Amino acid sequence: MYTTRRALLQSTAVAVLTVTMNLRALAAQSPTDPLPSWTEGDVKEKLLDFVRRTTADGSGEFVPVSERIAVFDNDGTLWCEQPLYTQAYFVIDRVRGLAAERPEWKEKEPFASLLKGDVKGVAATGEEGIAALMAATHAGISTDEFSKIVTDWIATAKHPQTGRLFTQMVYKPMLELLTHLRANGYKTYIVSGGGIEFMRPWTEQVYGIPPEQVIGSTGGLKFNIRDGAPLLEKLPTLVLNNDKEGKPVGIHRHIGRRPVMSFGNSDGDYEMLRWTTSGTGPRFGLLVHHTDAKREYAYDRGSPIGRLEKALDEAPKHGWHVIDMARDWRQIFDLENPDCAQP
Amino acid sequence: MYTTRRALLQSTAVAVLTVTMNLRALAAQSPTDPLPSWTEGDVKEKLLDFVRRTTADGSGEFVPVSERIAVFDNDGTLWCEQPLYTQAYFVIDRVRGLAAERPEWKEKEPFASLLKGDVKGVAATGEEGIAALMAATHAGISTDEFSKIVTDWIATAKHPQTGRLFTQMVYKPMLELLTHLRANGYKTYIVSGGGIEFMRPWTEQVYGIPPEQVIGSTGGLKFNIRDGAPLLEKLPTLVLNNDKEGKPVGIHRHIGRRPVMSFGNSDGDYEMLRWTTSGTGPRFGLLVHHTDAKREYAYDRGSPIGRLEKALDEAPKHGWHVIDMARDWRQIFDLENPDCAQP
Repeated sequence: MYTTRRALLQSTAVAVLTVTMNLRALAAQSPTDPLPSWTEGDVKEKLLDFVRRTTADGSGEFVPVSERIAVFDNDGTLWCEQPLYTQAYFVIDRVRGLAAERPEWKEKEPFASLLKGDVKGVAATGEEGIAALMAATHAGISTDEFSKIVTDWIATAKHPQTGRLFTQMVYKPMLELLTHLRANGYKTYIVSGGGIEFMRPWTEQVYGIPPEQVIGSTGGLKFNIRDGAPLLEKLPTLVLNNDKEGKPVGIHRHIGRRPVMSFGNSDGDYEMLRWTTSGTGPRFGLLVHHTDAKREYAYDRGSPIGRLEKALDEAPKHGWHVIDMARDWRQIFDLENPDCAQP
Repeated sequence: MYTTRRALLQSTAVAVLTVTMNLRALAAQSPTDPLPSWTEGDVKEKLLDFVRRTTADGSGEFVPVSERIAVFDNDGTLWCEQPLYTQAYFVIDRVRGLAAERPEWKEKEPFASLLKGDVKGVAATGEEGIAALMAATHAGISTDEFSKIVTDWIATAKHPQTGRLFTQMVYKPMLELLTHLRANGYKTYIVSGGGIEFMRPWTEQVYGIPPEQVIGSTGGLKFNIRDGAPLLEKLPTLVLNNDKEGKPVGIHRHIGRRPVMSFGNSDGDYEMLRWTTSGTGPRFGLLVHHTDAKREYAYDRGSPIGRLEKALDEAPKHGWHVIDMARDWRQIFDLENPDCAQP
């Protein structure tokens, strides 16, 4: 009797073990891998494990659904930011489009340099020049008018080096991650230095992120009633510069709670990652390191766009994970012919 | 044969009619009436009908879930705002609590008047005085510290005339409406002239509205790292006065789309209702008219708090519905003993 029971227990244990191992093997090559564009390895495993730990019932690190907030920088984190931010191409196209009505721009900086394609000349006009460009291209019209201008532009505007639509320059691994997080009850937000009104018209379609979950640099607005119809006029003032120390401010103002997960790629995201990962309970910080000159661009220290130095140096100290794009991303862009996306 | 068929048709018609009438009668006294505290009548019927029309598959006025946004003023719309806004009592209690550390306040306006309980004296110091009070009670500490102070205060602070907790001074009919809208895919937002940081610590528990769906008057914030720990310091500056023409600005900044439904009770909500109901497609605007001096307070034109004049006069022109609290709300407060809530 005793022997029989023991044998039964042993055979049961073997059976359980076999089933478990088979399930593990199945999971590794599972067709339902939520992150197929990510190379198997430490970063992918840490990400999936964090999501499991914070969402599993009875887990010591369980996070209630209402507190599952994940924030993503946009330029360089969700889509390509080289050789210039996409919004810079929008400004260039818009100045060109408006130039006929503004003949004085031919003689007036920074417009003169911009119309000649002289990027260095524009850069030399400094912050004041940038402010003048933003005022000329982003203000003086209603929010509805601006939204339509952006929608029309983004539908056809193409990356200067790949010839692909800018909306095709998004990172496939990050789209998979956004979907996986949402499937696990995380609310996904964009927290970008880019303009909030420039992003909102297309983020829902491209990333599945609705306008109310897009936080960005914000201009002044004025309510008016014109010909009996209410409108919001865009002013040339800056209400929030949502970069660096402005990011935690934007997060708090819009969300009102500290995120659980934070994703960035440059020193502009340093404060956002510090704010996120210094909260109590489980927190996750991650930097996208642009290491792939063949499939995308390789840059970090000293890059005028997306400079990554302080955040990279301090990543180990704060427990932030670092994605090595060349190593950790099996595929970068989601295109019929992926080669076309290579700059 | 013909006669038989005709008789059959007639009896079928009668049967269908009977069933329909029975269903209607059932619905009228249904235990699943989503708005039991609302008196049967025009406003209740219009509200339920609008929700049905905008959410029923195949309805010509169907609104996709992502666009179902309903915005609510707070003071006087979701909870009582008389004899003073609840936040004013918070300011008074906080000045009293801080007075021991600030002996100079005994001689300095507006603090001196406030500490003597001289409301007129405080009012005489005007906007400058109010700004000084807000700076002294709402700034100079971190967002985490302020949130804890509000949480502790709201847990015990009581209405001066009913002796009930302020959180028990919320309107039961509006709680039912919030629940009904959310059950139909509407996202419910608060859009208040009150302080965003004053509301967020308790709105989720009291209204089921999470912090990211609370929009209010907003102060400046500064990111700092103190003793190695990041924090957000509250500044004495005003970034958004979320009242009157500030409400559509706050709505656009936080939500990025025009609401479908809008609920207010004073001229401070006029622009929000105009902005909402001037959108294309189905829109719903509603004013809570305080007509019940017995169960709550009766006020409109000329009231220093919650003045309702222009919005009421223009309601018919813009198709806004008006709740007559005395007539349309069967019950106002949800208390074990409803009489206690009567001022």
